[in-house]
Amino acid sequence: MRTLLRSSLRHLAARRAHYSDASKVKRHLLSRIYQPGNRWMENSPEIQAKSNEPSSKSQRLLYKAGLIRPASPGCFHYLPHTVRSMEKLILVIDRAMQEVGGQKIDMPTLCSAALWRQSGRWDLVGTELLCLTDRHNREYCLGPTHEEAVTDLVGTEGGISYKQLPLLLYQITRKFRDEKRPCFGLLRGREFYMKDMYTFDINEEAAYQTYNNVCDAYSNIFSTLDLKHVKVQADTGNIGGKMSHEFHLPASIGEDRLLVCGTCDFAANVETLHPDEENCPSCRGQLTESKGIEIGHTFYLGTKYSHIFNAVCIDAENKPVVAEMGCYGIGVSRLLAASLEVLSTEEDLHWPNLIAPYQICLIPPKKGSKEMAASFVAEELYDDICTIPCMRNEAVLDDRVHLTIGKRVMEAHLLGYPYVIVIGKKALESPPMFEVQNHRTGEVQFLSKEGVLSFIQDVPVI
Amino acid sequence: MRTLLRSSLRHLAARRAHYSDASKVKRHLLSRIYQPGNRWMENSPEIQAKSNEPSSKSQRLLYKAGLIRPASPGCFHYLPHTVRSMEKLILVIDRAMQEVGGQKIDMPTLCSAALWRQSGRWDLVGTELLCLTDRHNREYCLGPTHEEAVTDLVGTEGGISYKQLPLLLYQITRKFRDEKRPCFGLLRGREFYMKDMYTFDINEEAAYQTYNNVCDAYSNIFSTLDLKHVKVQADTGNIGGKMSHEFHLPASIGEDRLLVCGTCDFAANVETLHPDEENCPSCRGQLTESKGIEIGHTFYLGTKYSHIFNAVCIDAENKPVVAEMGCYGIGVSRLLAASLEVLSTEEDLHWPNLIAPYQICLIPPKKGSKEMAASFVAEELYDDICTIPCMRNEAVLDDRVHLTIGKRVMEAHLLGYPYVIVIGKKALESPPMFEVQNHRTGEVQFLSKEGVLSFIQDVPVI
Repeated sequence: MRTLLRSSLRHLAARRAHYSDASKVKRHLLSRIYQPGNRWMENSPEIQAKSNEPSSKSQRLLYKAGLIRPASPGCFHYLPHTVRSMEKLILVIDRAMQEVGGQKIDMPTLCSAALWRQSGRWDLVGTELLCLTDRHNREYCLGPTHEEAVTDLVGTEGGISYKQLPLLLYQITRKFRDEKRPCFGLLRGREFYMKDMYTFDINEEAAYQTYNNVCDAYSNIFSTLDLKHVKVQADTGNIGGKMSHEFHLPASIGEDRLLVCGTCDFAANVETLHPDEENCPSCRGQLTESKGIEIGHTFYLGTKYSHIFNAVCIDAENKPVVAEMGCYGIGVSRLLAASLEVLSTEEDLHWPNLIAPYQICLIPPKKGSKEMAASFVAEELYDDICTIPCMRNEAVLDDRVHLTIGKRVMEAHLLGYPYVIVIGKKALESPPMFEVQNHRTGEVQFLSKEGVLSFIQDVPVI
Repeated sequence: MRTLLRSSLRHLAARRAHYSDASKVKRHLLSRIYQPGNRWMENSPEIQAKSNEPSSKSQRLLYKAGLIRPASPGCFHYLPHTVRSMEKLILVIDRAMQEVGGQKIDMPTLCSAALWRQSGRWDLVGTELLCLTDRHNREYCLGPTHEEAVTDLVGTEGGISYKQLPLLLYQITRKFRDEKRPCFGLLRGREFYMKDMYTFDINEEAAYQTYNNVCDAYSNIFSTLDLKHVKVQADTGNIGGKMSHEFHLPASIGEDRLLVCGTCDFAANVETLHPDEENCPSCRGQLTESKGIEIGHTFYLGTKYSHIFNAVCIDAENKPVVAEMGCYGIGVSRLLAASLEVLSTEEDLHWPNLIAPYQICLIPPKKGSKEMAASFVAEELYDDICTIPCMRNEAVLDDRVHLTIGKRVMEAHLLGYPYVIVIGKKALESPPMFEVQNHRTGEVQFLSKEGVLSFIQDVPVI
């Protein structure tokens, strides 16, 4: 048996090596990445035909840099850089949700019309629902949100034990909304990624506590991404419930009008106030209007859905109690676009650093230039950066050495890599010095190889 | 500037700490995980009403263990354990695809009918397509596969430079198929996860090389998961093209009939051979029939789609050449279910170890038992396991101490954790000894704490 165990361990060790073998790291070469921006004009007739809709800065830059492409109105292809950024953003959200006890599930896109009729939302949401009929004439909608589905799921199980409360279930999936007028690229699409969480508690007090915890987690997410945001009281719309808040990134392109009090911490979506209201309802202070892009929305639902679908908690006396629910959404693809909208300049993309597609772009000398002698030093530096475990997949080498350094630096800034490292003239000095550009601050430093590696080691990654 | 840099570094370091602070590890407590199996009967009227369809072993066990729930025919809710396993499987596939140069993109579910009419597949695929009309009366299907979309995407860009070839684009997204008779749970659903890759080459020779590379990557994925699989020649069906292979897991529940030669390496789906064929067409050897579950399908497409959507490569002389394409699918949720189908016993789930929801289930003593004195040792062991970096999120503590050890061990085996660690009588000895059960082999060992930790360090994880 001992031999068996040893051989099985050897087998395991070999497999493990397969997954952590640093020598297997592939170089990420920019020339190989599918990013067709250079050959493509944002106002070509092909593109106009596919997406004849109002544009936004983030959309224009994402097109220009070759990071997204329109498929049909409000629907986009995400190209490789964008997928990387989305996956990082999803990881940030996963961690925040799991820190407050969220459990990740995955519910179908196809939502049975019967459930939506039961809640009364089939007709209420109306033309915004994308609906279809299957070969057996059963009706479905493509879920824009999943209150019915999750409450029915939990209701069918016959009761959540008080020991399991609060129960927080969430998913990050594509959602669908038949927008009359999709616009601004990923900001208002018809097919988009959303994180939706649903919570179950045994009484109002516990449910309000859960509600506040999730709201705090939302603020943490936006702070982690270094995004200035504002939380405002909001309308409950067709979701319903007793209380609601929205999270906004202030931006002139925002479609919501917000009123923020200069004296106390009151803030509201203008649609929640009486049209004649000029002063803060809490302290009568002055209200200032600004515009915001909605990136999150929370609802205290009460028993609206749990009552219909019989989702109950079982208390310590073994008695069923209709669950108090909350629901909480973050538009994930919209958050990505909104953060590009508020951080970018007119010329260059700026991502929240943590979720930039790559942290570092390394630019070696032009072929045939005087600095070309430093090419080897450049590749060595690149490989050394990749040996830093957290940077293994975070550096891209711009090997398009037929282009000048200047042209490639310009493109690197358009794309918004947080750090651009240029291997220029000073790389021929002894010791070689490298130019490290901080895209956000514009700061430039010349560092030795050790300096670069030590600097990079402290770059936060997810 | 130096001060600025230092303070910015401190800021970065603080953020980084947030993401790697081991002290923030949360215990994964089984009592908190939403896994409603215990209260739920697989043949309850509620469930029967939702999914009145032929069942399979994997489906029965996934229901029983509380890992999936039916939503509507062929559509399932994935509960937390299943989502963990799916995410690991996706990571395995991502790595394999990226090792052969695959680049991950993400295309919309809503596929414009116009594209599908252009390729002639709108009518060809017919009733298997789930179709809908939006508020502006534009028609779409929910993409079951994306040849049209990806070829149009690439075609619109006006030509792939020969320097970028081969171009391999893939995505892992939900796909839809209006199965007449969805059955066997995740094995044949109407909404499911699929990895689909599309490749572009400049000539047949290069395209065959790419085709073979991707086929090899497929074999590697299945081997990494320790799955015995067979590759057979296959029909090109409605996808079309010049050549096709399927990958199967041999299983009696499989819906495909395979013929495998006992002499040479010929193997084929029976539908590709003449009904009267009794011997191997290559060597005239004896053919043996078996059944298989299809988990992967590859197609050499030639120019079928590139011709229609004008997807061209630009050769070294700057001339456009219609691209030679391949397409390659893995049914991701089906692969998960199929591997459970072939590895599990009638009583217990067995996952490919690498993608089990958790690697380890730790079972502390029952409350009120003699062994209860070892509870503290159990929690300490659990926390120590979580300090091993790769095990940080891989161990679950079965804290339902009102249940006997025996009952919990039984449930742990139903759920299929690869390693079950029982803190029983011997944990009271000095030094404490722990029972480590290998779920796959049935092997049981008693190890000291150091022994457990050193054993666990070698468990492969993704």
